[in-house]
Amino acid sequence: MSSTDRQSSAVNPVVYVTRIQSFCSAHRLNSGSLDVQTNGQTYGKCNAVHGHNYKAEVTVRGAVDAITGFVVDIAILNDIIDETIMKTMDHKNIDEDVPYFRDNHIVSTAENIAVYIWKAIAERLPKSVSLDSIKLHETDKNVFVFRGEFV
Amino acid sequence: MSSTDRQSSAVNPVVYVTRIQSFCSAHRLNSGSLDVQTNGQTYGKCNAVHGHNYKAEVTVRGAVDAITGFVVDIAILNDIIDETIMKTMDHKNIDEDVPYFRDNHIVSTAENIAVYIWKAIAERLPKSVSLDSIKLHETDKNVFVFRGEFV
Amino acid sequence: MSSTDRQSSAVNPVVYVTRIQSFCSAHRLNSGSLDVQTNGQTYGKCNAVHGHNYKAEVTVRGAVDAITGFVVDIAILNDIIDETIMKTMDHKNIDEDVPYFRDNHIVSTAENIAVYIWKAIAERLPKSVSLDSIKLHETDKNVFVFRGEFV
Amino acid sequence: MSSTDRQSSAVNPVVYVTRIQSFCSAHRLNSGSLDVQTNGQTYGKCNAVHGHNYKAEVTVRGAVDAITGFVVDIAILNDIIDETIMKTMDHKNIDEDVPYFRDNHIVSTAENIAVYIWKAIAERLPKSVSLDSIKLHETDKNVFVFRGEFV
Amino acid sequence: MSSTDRQSSAVNPVVYVTRIQSFCSAHRLNSGSLDVQTNGQTYGKCNAVHGHNYKAEVTVRGAVDAITGFVVDIAILNDIIDETIMKTMDHKNIDEDVPYFRDNHIVSTAENIAVYIWKAIAERLPKSVSLDSIKLHETDKNVFVFRGEFV
Amino acid sequence: MSSTDRQSSAVNPVVYVTRIQSFCSAHRLNSGSLDVQTNGQTYGKCNAVHGHNYKAEVTVRGAVDAITGFVVDIAILNDIIDETIMKTMDHKNIDEDVPYFRDNHIVSTAENIAVYIWKAIAERLPKSVSLDSIKLHETDKNVFVFRGEFV
Repeated sequence: MSSTDRQSSAVNPVVYVTRIQSFCSAHRLNSGSLDVQTNGQTYGKCNAVHGHNYKAEVTVRGAVDAITGFVVDIAILNDIIDETIMKTMDHKNIDEDVPYFRDNHIVSTAENIAVYIWKAIAERLPKSVSLDSIKLHETDKNVFVFRGEFV
Repeated sequence: MSSTDRQSSAVNPVVYVTRIQSFCSAHRLNSGSLDVQTNGQTYGKCNAVHGHNYKAEVTVRGAVDAITGFVVDIAILNDIIDETIMKTMDHKNIDEDVPYFRDNHIVSTAENIAVYIWKAIAERLPKSVSLDSIKLHETDKNVFVFRGEFV
Repeated sequence: MSSTDRQSSAVNPVVYVTRIQSFCSAHRLNSGSLDVQTNGQTYGKCNAVHGHNYKAEVTVRGAVDAITGFVVDIAILNDIIDETIMKTMDHKNIDEDVPYFRDNHIVSTAENIAVYIWKAIAERLPKSVSLDSIKLHETDKNVFVFRGEFV
Repeated sequence: MSSTDRQSSAVNPVVYVTRIQSFCSAHRLNSGSLDVQTNGQTYGKCNAVHGHNYKAEVTVRGAVDAITGFVVDIAILNDIIDETIMKTMDHKNIDEDVPYFRDNHIVSTAENIAVYIWKAIAERLPKSVSLDSIKLHETDKNVFVFRGEFV
Repeated sequence: MSSTDRQSSAVNPVVYVTRIQSFCSAHRLNSGSLDVQTNGQTYGKCNAVHGHNYKAEVTVRGAVDAITGFVVDIAILNDIIDETIMKTMDHKNIDEDVPYFRDNHIVSTAENIAVYIWKAIAERLPKSVSLDSIKLHETDKNVFVFRGEFV
Repeated sequence: MSSTDRQSSAVNPVVYVTRIQSFCSAHRLNSGSLDVQTNGQTYGKCNAVHGHNYKAEVTVRGAVDAITGFVVDIAILNDIIDETIMKTMDHKNIDEDVPYFRDNHIVSTAENIAVYIWKAIAERLPKSVSLDSIKLHETDKNVFVFRGEFV
């Protein structure tokens, strides 16, 4: 009996696997749709270039393989995170170095960074798992979660 | 096109924003519906006056504004938390100083404190966001979440 | 009016109560369904005996009792956790000392440990609460959640 | 050769062993030497009854036993901490329930609590170790260390 | 007997008080004494503009006042930290916005930031305490301490 | 003027640099100098094979280079930690896989692991820095520091 056969039985538990990755980036909050004064009023001290040790929690959902006991090989998840988060944003200026933000003039709020990470990871995941959520800690006190919902 | 217009389009991502606030309060667990002996049996060492560094995670849910990239101005959320949590409970005795508990003879369990915070914050939130959950850490080991559900 | 009467009214808030417990165990990842080489390829360095400070977050869901203000007496939850986690796995070799894994040849991945804890705790809970989730931190970076779902 | 013999040789490494213990207490800052107004000015919001999840780090210093590899049996250290911290201050009102503070009219600042813990533990330690420091976290942001120094 | 009198007696305990403050800054590592290639080799990915959630632990040392039980009014320490750390570096680009680094062409390594904080705080402290150490967490894994020593 | 020249001037600040590394190992406490019963009494539940997520804080002390602003290139420190901690102990059974413990019949207490890390790192450090301390967290509650002292 193959792993696939056993996975398709009705008794495989579903587990949510979270991999946590920290990265250090510079950014500023400044909207091209707003004038200087409104940017200052809207973003306050975040209108200046500053930076964070961001912490991203990437959570995927899938069935536990009956043979290996894994939902997903963490190394695969790690490679995807390395490509989409570390190589793209770590020790970079998000507004200047990440094409998604720079070319689309998207403000690098934590909300938009979480959405960006979702999009970048979702298209690279193996089919056996689905993306559940991206949780982004901007600081110890401000945390943002995107679950792929739109209105 | 105004921000409101763009928000009403079908492509705005929904993000959950959490603001974390610590506060230090004294309390004791003692029910006016129970006699002294039953209070002692029910609450154990928590029947004596003691205290905690509570940590509250206030999570709201809303669409990301297409102009500002914000779900909500954290400063507004902070003001609401300051009024409902900090001014009301921080460095206070919850049983004696918070009218909700004192006047209604509600036992200041973490469960009831989470419900209290929910009620106090829900009525002050701007209409653009909805309250998702109150997560209250009483200690590093005991955590309580209220999501506005009733039975 | 008894506590039961008041609990059955429509106004009791539902709160999720989490108790967090750390434990230290040794294990290795090795599947009896795989040959030596495939085990090495599948599990990498985790194919050797090593160990972790696991951290389990046990979350139950229930109505807040109108008299006591409790969803559940934490001492009862603690006793269940002590029996199912601490006495069974703490300072043990999971593969050799825990019958569930040893006798059923189940690989001690974090996924399967989370499922095991769910099963062991679910059958011992008082009827007033239901099990919501088991969150298992294998390390600071790898976290696994089981919510009782199967596919 | 006995353990004592080997310990007295010149090659035993000296290790500092820290045991960390949390406790929950209520207190207020109010000095019997100051009038009401000065107390209010001196202690601000801490002049009201409130509480904390304190965290104490008790560090002892001693030679590593050549046979057991221990500086001290942690269970002995734990018993001393249980007696001096947990039974005395946990889930208590420090100002009213701890004789050292109540009877001597000592203000329960974190400084004085650290000194109290030092005195209580120092006189109970086995002779093979010496007390190195008491580190008391009042909150995540305020930390106090006493090393037995006086001026 | 005045507070000063009592402080000068031989029985006042000495306590180390630490205040912890987080701040978010952008910076890059680039030395004006090195050419472009050597800067790249020396600083690697830190040669690009990025940022951190720094965490500074400011520790002062002083006698516990016999009347108030304080080594120092934390509010005073807080004001000094606010002026020297928060207003100067938080949500700023250290290399461009902090005169100490910009005007003296000092590379904004964590080592030099710790030295800068020491110098800025030392000259503002009240005479009753002395500066013991500045501990700067650049990330969760890299920590730097300056104790005022020079060689 | 070379970097070496400037380092030898009297104005270079001395900074303590800490690199923190986690590792996962299995072990048991069992002394070849003790019989089975005494081992059981001495080590309790630690006499069985179990494991930990250890966390090591390696602190070195050195002058800040006037050109680079570094005490030491963290990459060099990392390589040494990788060789002495990660390759030697991570995902290993310390008692069986680490020659220092296996061949010398040294009990793998946290005290002895800290001493082992000290010895392994001290002989590999560049001459510009000296080893200050090894801090080993066995769990969140038990921490051990070795500073190279012997009695």
